[in-house]
Amino acid sequence: MKAAIIGVGMTKFGRDLEHQLPELAAQAVNLALDDAGVDRKDIQYVAFANVGGWSAEFFPMPIVCEYAGLTPIGGMRVEAACASGSAALNAACMAVASGAVDIALAVGAERMNELSTPQVVELLGRGGNFFWEFESFGLTFPAYYALYATAYMQEYGASEEDLAKIAVKNHYYGSMNPKAQFQKKITLEDVMKSRYIAWPLKLYDCSPITDGAAAAIVASEKVASKLTDTPIWVKAQGLATGTANLTMREDLLSIRSAVEAAKEAYKIAGIEEPVKSLDFALVHDCFTIAEILAYEDLGFAKRGEGYLLAREEQTYIGGLIPVNIDGGLKSKGHPIGASGLGMVHEAVKQLRQEIDGNRQAPIRKGQALIHNVGGTGHFAYVTILSLEKPRA
Amino acid sequence: MKAAIIGVGMTKFGRDLEHQLPELAAQAVNLALDDAGVDRKDIQYVAFANVGGWSAEFFPMPIVCEYAGLTPIGGMRVEAACASGSAALNAACMAVASGAVDIALAVGAERMNELSTPQVVELLGRGGNFFWEFESFGLTFPAYYALYATAYMQEYGASEEDLAKIAVKNHYYGSMNPKAQFQKKITLEDVMKSRYIAWPLKLYDCSPITDGAAAAIVASEKVASKLTDTPIWVKAQGLATGTANLTMREDLLSIRSAVEAAKEAYKIAGIEEPVKSLDFALVHDCFTIAEILAYEDLGFAKRGEGYLLAREEQTYIGGLIPVNIDGGLKSKGHPIGASGLGMVHEAVKQLRQEIDGNRQAPIRKGQALIHNVGGTGHFAYVTILSLEKPRA
Repeated sequence: MKAAIIGVGMTKFGRDLEHQLPELAAQAVNLALDDAGVDRKDIQYVAFANVGGWSAEFFPMPIVCEYAGLTPIGGMRVEAACASGSAALNAACMAVASGAVDIALAVGAERMNELSTPQVVELLGRGGNFFWEFESFGLTFPAYYALYATAYMQEYGASEEDLAKIAVKNHYYGSMNPKAQFQKKITLEDVMKSRYIAWPLKLYDCSPITDGAAAAIVASEKVASKLTDTPIWVKAQGLATGTANLTMREDLLSIRSAVEAAKEAYKIAGIEEPVKSLDFALVHDCFTIAEILAYEDLGFAKRGEGYLLAREEQTYIGGLIPVNIDGGLKSKGHPIGASGLGMVHEAVKQLRQEIDGNRQAPIRKGQALIHNVGGTGHFAYVTILSLEKPRA
Repeated sequence: MKAAIIGVGMTKFGRDLEHQLPELAAQAVNLALDDAGVDRKDIQYVAFANVGGWSAEFFPMPIVCEYAGLTPIGGMRVEAACASGSAALNAACMAVASGAVDIALAVGAERMNELSTPQVVELLGRGGNFFWEFESFGLTFPAYYALYATAYMQEYGASEEDLAKIAVKNHYYGSMNPKAQFQKKITLEDVMKSRYIAWPLKLYDCSPITDGAAAAIVASEKVASKLTDTPIWVKAQGLATGTANLTMREDLLSIRSAVEAAKEAYKIAGIEEPVKSLDFALVHDCFTIAEILAYEDLGFAKRGEGYLLAREEQTYIGGLIPVNIDGGLKSKGHPIGASGLGMVHEAVKQLRQEIDGNRQAPIRKGQALIHNVGGTGHFAYVTILSLEKPRA
């Protein structure tokens, strides 16, 4: 399957009630069109990533398309929980690789602050298996990930400080990212003193509620090289679903769907030793524990040793493998339908070496990984982007 | 783009509160697997069509997958309003045609009766442009289509009886369809005496609120012919979006997105004279007026003459072109996320000549059309299915 990203765009993530959902999406689309140097008339297919539930608008996709000047281009809304952005990228890639179209658009947008924080907490709390587990257990979304954290700490001896180091790193990089929701450095003490949301996760262990949009323009092999000198090839995408029932999980020490998705992506891309093959990774740190699990699920560390990468600061630029050097969901923000495409935005800019200052990773292997999880492992998408055109 | 449908399944459509959404979906999946003669382990990609909003379950797709024994297969939920089923078919076709997978599943399910009728009316009423039009105009969904009906009757002189004849035809065929929600014939008088929902649309002009699921298994060119003697090829799909703002429509005499989608599908399939090239069509008769507009939007009749096909009974088997010989949404039912795949179920069975009794259309051209509209023209998908493998 051959497909290349030829343009990306994203809004500044943050609390943004000044712009309606279609305005946020159109901003990202316009930036992506400018970046690709193509006209909106050149787009032949649209995959719109959006979870929704925040507003009364029941069918947001055509409204977004119309506002962004894309009507009557065909397409659909896609939803894979917090991995929706990666699902839209996948749909756009399949559209061009199938020969159906030459240029496709993946755009994701979410406007979560339309609801109050308690309402957002209630909605996201349904992100387990609502029918079987929510009404009986009453877990909030942070509480789901707190179960992962407590299981992990109990089994392997990781500490709250180890989790906190993830937040410190991601805020450090976020402080240099003008698109990030929080552009301020924090200290280990800041994290440790922040209030508990769901023990052992504190305020600074949690990604925020965010409004924002991101977009990527995908082209077929036939047209990509004509349109840009630096196409970023989607070398592989692995995708998997997992049980929504916590009671059905074999353990809470890894996210099964992410393991499956990574295995598939590595197989397609021919990657045997991830840390040696990748310049950097952007992983789904909805909570600090999720980034540590990702280290292990992606094979950056052995089982039970992911927290040591955090403790030893091996995921800063210059370490074993730089991770979330855009600030991650933690500091950059997490507008759930847009987050996957926000990662794509960063990975493409990094691979093209267009990042200002200390946030640019050295690009030696020409290859990066995006890890995007939906729910508590309901969905996982692992995407390998590459400067080199895939052979198969 | 080459993709073939090798198996289909659907539940009996109707009011069904005995089965949860995952149970409905799993029933359809199991029937499709049996029909295709493949195992659920052979499925490599799942597109799940579901509009949702009826239940508190926020991320239904992984729950459906788990219940249907499909975990950890990757995929996503797709939504294109009432055309979601066709969007899922499109995603599954692109997945196989891109080379990403060999066998993909499109499954759609909706359980609308989870809400009370007034709640369903409120939710569907948002299916205009909620932000700009709902709170100012307060239209219900039938009222949107009543605007089409009044404009059409005013412009062309069609009568309420002409609309009623669509309902009579569709109930006639529905009476012979064991999967239909309403299996009873009605008379013109029954329709004319039924109460007004939104003038000139009466109860029998409107499709019902339905629970149900439908599924299709799609295979790549490479494996389709190995797995079945009668692959049904997806020869073309045209897709388009339209404005959700009624105030932005040029007129209310046709559905622009459907015209665009049909044009694209006919171009890909090389169809110049639809009624001569198709054995039958299944069109989106959410209201009787919608079927008459479809006749014109699809080129079965000239502008302003669609109602004459109804008046002259030209869309029964034996007429110019048989339409909605499964009962249509009107009598078969309209579980919105599943409806497009319910049409696929019927078209595949018809093309294979597996329909019992008087409902089987003569198959001479080996080709059929599915027209699936989302919202009031927000989305349109026109699909051409064929017994013959496409050349391109």
